Order: sequence, then C-alpha cells, then structure tokens
Amino acid sequence: MTTESIEDLTRRLTAFAAARSWQPFHTPKNLAAALTVEAGELLEIFQWLTPEQAVAVMSEPDRAHRVRDEVADVLAYLLQFCAVLGVDPLAALSAKIDRNELRFPVPGDVGEAGEGGR
Amino acid sequence: MTTESIEDLTRRLTAFAAARSWQPFHTPKNLAAALTVEAGELLEIFQWLTPEQAVAVMSEPDRAHRVRDEVADVLAYLLQFCAVLGVDPLAALSAKIDRNELRFPVPGDVGEAGEGGR
Amino acid sequence: MTTESIEDLTRRLTAFAAARSWQPFHTPKNLAAALTVEAGELLEIFQWLTPEQAVAVMSEPDRAHRVRDEVADVLAYLLQFCAVLGVDPLAALSAKIDRNELRFPVPGDVGEAGEGGR
Amino acid sequence: MTTESIEDLTRRLTAFAAARSWQPFHTPKNLAAALTVEAGELLEIFQWLTPEQAVAVMSEPDRAHRVRDEVADVLAYLLQFCAVLGVDPLAALSAKIDRNELRFPVPGDVGEAGEGGR
Repeated sequence: MTTESIEDLTRRLTAFAAARSWQPFHTPKNLAAALTVEAGELLEIFQWLTPEQAVAVMSEPDRAHRVRDEVADVLAYLLQFCAVLGVDPLAALSAKIDRNELRFPVPGDVGEAGEGGR
Repeated sequence: MTTESIEDLTRRLTAFAAARSWQPFHTPKNLAAALTVEAGELLEIFQWLTPEQAVAVMSEPDRAHRVRDEVADVLAYLLQFCAVLGVDPLAALSAKIDRNELRFPVPGDVGEAGEGGR
Repeated sequence: MTTESIEDLTRRLTAFAAARSWQPFHTPKNLAAALTVEAGELLEIFQWLTPEQAVAVMSEPDRAHRVRDEVADVLAYLLQFCAVLGVDPLAALSAKIDRNELRFPVPGDVGEAGEGGR
Repeated sequence: MTTESIEDLTRRLTAFAAARSWQPFHTPKNLAAALTVEAGELLEIFQWLTPEQAVAVMSEPDRAHRVRDEVADVLAYLLQFCAVLGVDPLAALSAKIDRNELRFPVPGDVGEAGEGGR
C-alpha cells in the first residue's frame, strides 16, 4: 500500500526527468504522443482475449505485472503532461464528472427526461 | 482547487456508471480501448502544432478547455479500468519509478556506469 | 468499384496537400501521430459494441458510412507517411508476410514443429 | 519492387489467418484494436525525435527496417479489417478525397471563398 499522493508522484517524475536532462524531450506534444503509445501497449495485452480471459487477466502473474507496468506508464506520462502544462488532473476530472451528471441524467430521477443515451 | 482525492473520484465514477447501468459495457477490454481512444483525442489537439504552439496551448481558452476535458477522459477511463481489475494505480506508478531509478542511473552518480541510454 | 490504384491515390493525396500548402505540416512525425489518432477514431465506433453488434456494423447506414470514412482517413495518412519517407507500403507488407510465414509455421505442415504460438 | 496488388496481399493475409485458424480472433473489433496498437508502435519510433531526426529516419538501417515493419503491420490489420467487413479501402479513400476537394477548396480558385481553414 503506497502512502504517496499523486502530487508526490508528480514531483518524483519531474525530479527523475530533470536528473537525467530529459526535460527538452518532455514537450507537451511528445508527452501526448507517449501517452497514446503507452495506452496502446495496455490495449495490446487485451486485443486477442475473449471477454472472459480479459476479466481474469490479473490471476496470471506475468500478465498482471504487465498490466500494472502499463498502467504506471500511462499515469506517468499523463502526470508529466499535466505538470508541463500546469493542468490539475484531479480538478479536471472532478469538473468533468460534474458536467456529465448534467449531460447524462439518471433514468427515473424525479424531474428528468431520462433518455439514457450516450 | 479540488479537495477530492483519486479514491474519491474513483468512487464517483463507479457510482456514476452504476446509476446508469453502464457496468456491463465497462469490461477491462472495453475500458482499455476507450482509454486509447481518449489518449488519441488528446494527441489530436497537438498533431499539427509546432513545438512553440504546443507549449502555448493553455493560453488559448478554447484549446485549454479541450485539453482539460481530454485529460479528464483519459484519467476517468484509467481509474475505471483499475477499479474493475483491482489495480492500485498510485502503487503501480510508485513501484515503476523505483524500478526505473535502478534501470536508468543518473549519469555521474558515485558507483554508477551512467550510460544514460533510454 | 474504383479503378484508381494505390499509386493513383497517393498522387492525388500529395497534389491535394501541395495545392493547399499543407506540406510543412506533413512531417513524418505529425503524419504518424495523425495515423494513430484516426485509428483511434475507427476503434471508437466499436468500443462499447458487443461482438455481435460489431459484426453487423455495416448493416446500419450511418455507422457503415463512418467506418468507410475512418478507413479512408487511416489509409490516407498511411500513404502520405510512406510518400514522405519513400516507403513502398505494398512491398513492406509483402516482405512482412514472407517473414511471418517462416515465423508462424502452419501446424501439421511436414517438417514443422507447429507450436502455434503467437 | 513488388508486383503484388492490394487485392493479392489481402488474399495472402486471409489465407495466412485461415491456415492458422486465427479467424475467430479476427473480429472487426479486435482488428480495429490491433490496428490502433500497431499505429502506436509506428508513432513510438518518432516520439522523442526532433523534426530533423524524424525526417532522416530512413537513413539509419535499423530504424528504417522498424518503420517498414510497422507500416506493414498497420496495413495488414487495415486490410484484414476491411476484408472481414466487406469494405473496399481504395474506393473509400477515393470517395473521401472527392468529398475533401469540396470541403477544402484551394485558396485562389475561381469562384471559391478560399478560407483555408482545416
């Protein structure tokens, strides 16, 4: 169980890149590209699996490690992208959920049309 | 400034999907696909920009909103993917940074070969 | 039924970009990013579909149009990427199939171990 | 110089998959996911390169081979996706260029507003 927060991890990533003089490579555009590449690597684990195999992916140690490794890469590039551009990812997500609660009303809620479309 | 933690946001996302009966769609494979799609939408903002334009992207309100919106979507699908599979994304990232500190030693550190390769 | 070859289409794409002075944007890196973005848009059509719905996607006119449109975008950026770098995509694929025939022998072929792994 | 057409290559790919009993995996959704994954692998070659390095990528034999290999993978999954759904990729691209010639008029053409937006 980690006790590191998302801010702690962002600081470690920034210090890691600075110590290796990688900042010139970490432009917003390059980090957005790297994020997409890593998301693709996560998807690659699942591309030929049946839904049943996909659900059971964490019960196989090698695949479970690979999933955690790719999740880490996606999150690492997302946090570095946000750090470079001054975006607060938690605030961005909180605001988006607020908007989606208005955009997709719960079917059956009092006073809602409840179309349930997506 | 949000006071919501990543755990709070994950709970909101899970409740949001449950209230709309979207869980059957939220398989690990579908969420990994959706994560890749949203990462692509973030990259789309940058695909024709010069490095200078990309760095200045947050100074243009419409683009800044779009960036925050796509960051939120990427994070939303990453957290939902992790929730469905029981992965702790912060622990995964912490462990990955630990491994990378061994894999990419800082050039010039005492006792390190310091090849600096990537 | 088109009578245009892949070379004809590549020439049309190149002339189209030149007439609009888009060549400065069509760097190999930008075109590789745009290709990934368009592949994501094709995947988006399928991300929440069941396998049955996915197979039937061309029987619904709006979705069928969207599929053809995204296929066109993927192929357009692939051909422009190849034109900019001097890659012959058909020769590259032909050589790759040759290599894969050695790498993945058909199970049961005389003289083959036939492990069938992927 | 290959003398194989895009139809020849599609037939080889279909026969290759059939001989290995891979058709059950080659659903439209899986092939769209695989296409996105391979596009990401092509982008990965370029993600940290400067524009100058990216333009010179084919002058380095190892990278040139990797580029051709990923181009082949992208094209292979695109053709198999089209074969499974009955889409003619060349006709789709031809129709798309026709539409784009109307949507993006050449600036300065007689009778055109020529906004040049994208």
